[in-house]
Amino acid sequence: MNMEDIIIKKRDGGKLTEQEIRYFVRGYTAGDIPDYQASALLMAIYFQKLDREETFQLTDAMKSSGDMADLSGIPGIKVDKHSTGGVGDKTTLIAAPIAAACGVPIAKMSGRGLGFTGGTIDKLESIPGMRTTLTPEEFTAQVSEIGIALIGQSGHITPADKKIYALRDVTGTVENMSLIASSIMSKKLAAGSDAIVLDVKCGDGAFMKKQEDARELGQIMCDIGESAGRKTIAMITDMNQPLGCAVGNGLEVREAIDVLHGKGPYDITELSLQLAGAMIYLGGRVKAFEEGAYMARQALSSGAAWEKFRMLVQHQGGDLETIEDPDLLPRSDTKKQIIADSYGFVSRIEAEQIGIASQHTGAGRAVKDEAIDPGAGVVLEKKVGDHVSKGEVLAAVYASSRKKAELAADEVELAYTISRDRPEVPELIKEIIR
Amino acid sequence: MNMEDIIIKKRDGGKLTEQEIRYFVRGYTAGDIPDYQASALLMAIYFQKLDREETFQLTDAMKSSGDMADLSGIPGIKVDKHSTGGVGDKTTLIAAPIAAACGVPIAKMSGRGLGFTGGTIDKLESIPGMRTTLTPEEFTAQVSEIGIALIGQSGHITPADKKIYALRDVTGTVENMSLIASSIMSKKLAAGSDAIVLDVKCGDGAFMKKQEDARELGQIMCDIGESAGRKTIAMITDMNQPLGCAVGNGLEVREAIDVLHGKGPYDITELSLQLAGAMIYLGGRVKAFEEGAYMARQALSSGAAWEKFRMLVQHQGGDLETIEDPDLLPRSDTKKQIIADSYGFVSRIEAEQIGIASQHTGAGRAVKDEAIDPGAGVVLEKKVGDHVSKGEVLAAVYASSRKKAELAADEVELAYTISRDRPEVPELIKEIIR
Repeated sequence: MNMEDIIIKKRDGGKLTEQEIRYFVRGYTAGDIPDYQASALLMAIYFQKLDREETFQLTDAMKSSGDMADLSGIPGIKVDKHSTGGVGDKTTLIAAPIAAACGVPIAKMSGRGLGFTGGTIDKLESIPGMRTTLTPEEFTAQVSEIGIALIGQSGHITPADKKIYALRDVTGTVENMSLIASSIMSKKLAAGSDAIVLDVKCGDGAFMKKQEDARELGQIMCDIGESAGRKTIAMITDMNQPLGCAVGNGLEVREAIDVLHGKGPYDITELSLQLAGAMIYLGGRVKAFEEGAYMARQALSSGAAWEKFRMLVQHQGGDLETIEDPDLLPRSDTKKQIIADSYGFVSRIEAEQIGIASQHTGAGRAVKDEAIDPGAGVVLEKKVGDHVSKGEVLAAVYASSRKKAELAADEVELAYTISRDRPEVPELIKEIIR
Repeated sequence: MNMEDIIIKKRDGGKLTEQEIRYFVRGYTAGDIPDYQASALLMAIYFQKLDREETFQLTDAMKSSGDMADLSGIPGIKVDKHSTGGVGDKTTLIAAPIAAACGVPIAKMSGRGLGFTGGTIDKLESIPGMRTTLTPEEFTAQVSEIGIALIGQSGHITPADKKIYALRDVTGTVENMSLIASSIMSKKLAAGSDAIVLDVKCGDGAFMKKQEDARELGQIMCDIGESAGRKTIAMITDMNQPLGCAVGNGLEVREAIDVLHGKGPYDITELSLQLAGAMIYLGGRVKAFEEGAYMARQALSSGAAWEKFRMLVQHQGGDLETIEDPDLLPRSDTKKQIIADSYGFVSRIEAEQIGIASQHTGAGRAVKDEAIDPGAGVVLEKKVGDHVSKGEVLAAVYASSRKKAELAADEVELAYTISRDRPEVPELIKEIIR
């Protein structure tokens, strides 16, 4: 087998065999196939696409390229959750404890963020003392004992995906459904859970701008999951404005605690309940899909979900006093408010623009391993559909310096559009693929 | 400017600016742009193509990437000639002296071959003593004095093309008209002649199998030439069987000498005259295109072309006795004949198969800088259209060992098809683009 023949076969619209796909993934991961042949193949795939079978095989080859988590020691149906990434998305911090409170074992590995804010792990680490690295034995023991553990990804999970993704990122070969889906799903499959709930973001602030693209991605990921014997549900959800009000690590934990106390913003609460509901359904705790969200809502209002979150923090060494008095969570000293200079309705908040502002406050990292400021970020006071008067506060930014705060505040201001007419608020959950 | 943006622009069907093309060619040649981004761009170009303007600009950028020959010290219109490559093609050895004998200054740099046989320079070097490296001063002086010099390419001509071609060769990005045309023409433009005659081979044994593809390539190369201010003519010529009868370096020189004495095979003689005619026309020695071939024929039959070849060999240190008695030219000791096992007409001789056989005799090199056997090769006794009786000799192979000769003889045998009906002989010159 020879890489040049594989490139030409795909270039000419041929279907790669399982052997050819494995040859590429193994050879490239091992360094036997050079970057320049891999990027030529990826560009050929961009144009000629992969069919379902090729996509399944690529995912499987990447999944098997490194360590795979073994969760078989944990009883019950373990359910994982993944979001394709949106601004202000802290649903894992909420949905995971809710599902766990309903008896679904959550043995979840999350990533760190690159870009707008940190990832789930960065957010958790804004709680003083919180450990996000456990040994496999500690991890399994904790899930068995309290039903939930949230830790950082091991360095040896799907090295093929890491290497291929880094190459795609600099060769104009990111935007291909099969490559996107296989990248996400290879990690999820290697992470070992029995079932997966996917939150596919759609809108201005998401990678998928159009609903039909989000649907296609959701469908192919569900198909990959099913082909690998994992029950998978994908929800297509709105990302035309940030989710909730807080954007930034410590600020988002604060908001997650509010939601767990039943007093969070509507959209983040509702989406977390729906995601948790799907997890509960896949975890076999209810018979009908619709009953999942109902059970989730009960776990939230009873305080059981909050209690589960508290146990999670306690078991991973986090400071309980801080989460009980969220004012103790980090919040940067320099605050700058953004004031409405006209009246009307908020008709648009560009999520991507808010994300960039958040990154500029210090809440996100531009390059891997950069330190992030756990107290920095943006808090929206007004969301799409809200009425504002001239002089009212639209949002506030928090940063470690006046300079950062001012730059970010200018960007937040630009993200807002205020109009005379009441806008239509985009539907939060657009579609469910299962 | 950023390479990733350039890749994405082309991937999405955009038109690259001259600045972007120069940025790529310069950056890649200098090693600032990595192979993996270059191969991704080349694959995007494969799918989205380059338009004429982009192709002109790419050619110009590659032309300027290294040394450029300065032939301005030589009076007259210097005319170059290039063939896209065929089996048994020794036309340069014949057409160049003919054109020179008609007063067209020939200051030609040729390459070495990779594959079936050597290139023009390898062929010339089968004449004992022949020097193929001259200083620029010697080169200019010789053309000024005797009207012709044939030397090897300088190492510093179009380094961008060398690097890009090597990458295309291993990334499935060879087959694109603009990339093929710009590769050939950048070298021709850098070689400094005022006008160019292109021999675009077409058929089973050529890179261009179809006449419409050959026409497209010829047209774009003519357009590149004209856009660079060089008069250019392209001839689309047959490569459905080897050209002439000899394939192999010393064997081909022997045949070229036969042609220059007016007793060579019809096809190689006729094509050489037509190419020389085009060179004479572009060199301004005749008014009408058709008169060129007439003047070439006269130079051949008068012996003037042979005399010019003799002077060329003498001035470059070659042994005159050898060319006057071609039996002194190298010819390998082990000879094996291929015998017809049925009667009929030769209906097909697969040129590529003959080329492979030639390489296996030792006449061609598989990798750069490999030594070649100047006496090895294949001599066809029967060509397409010839009648054969059972037991007659079809061809002979010459090699340095019985093993090589037997392998090659088997391959030559496979290349022949003999049928009962008299076949149509493909037209030698299919089209002229000017």
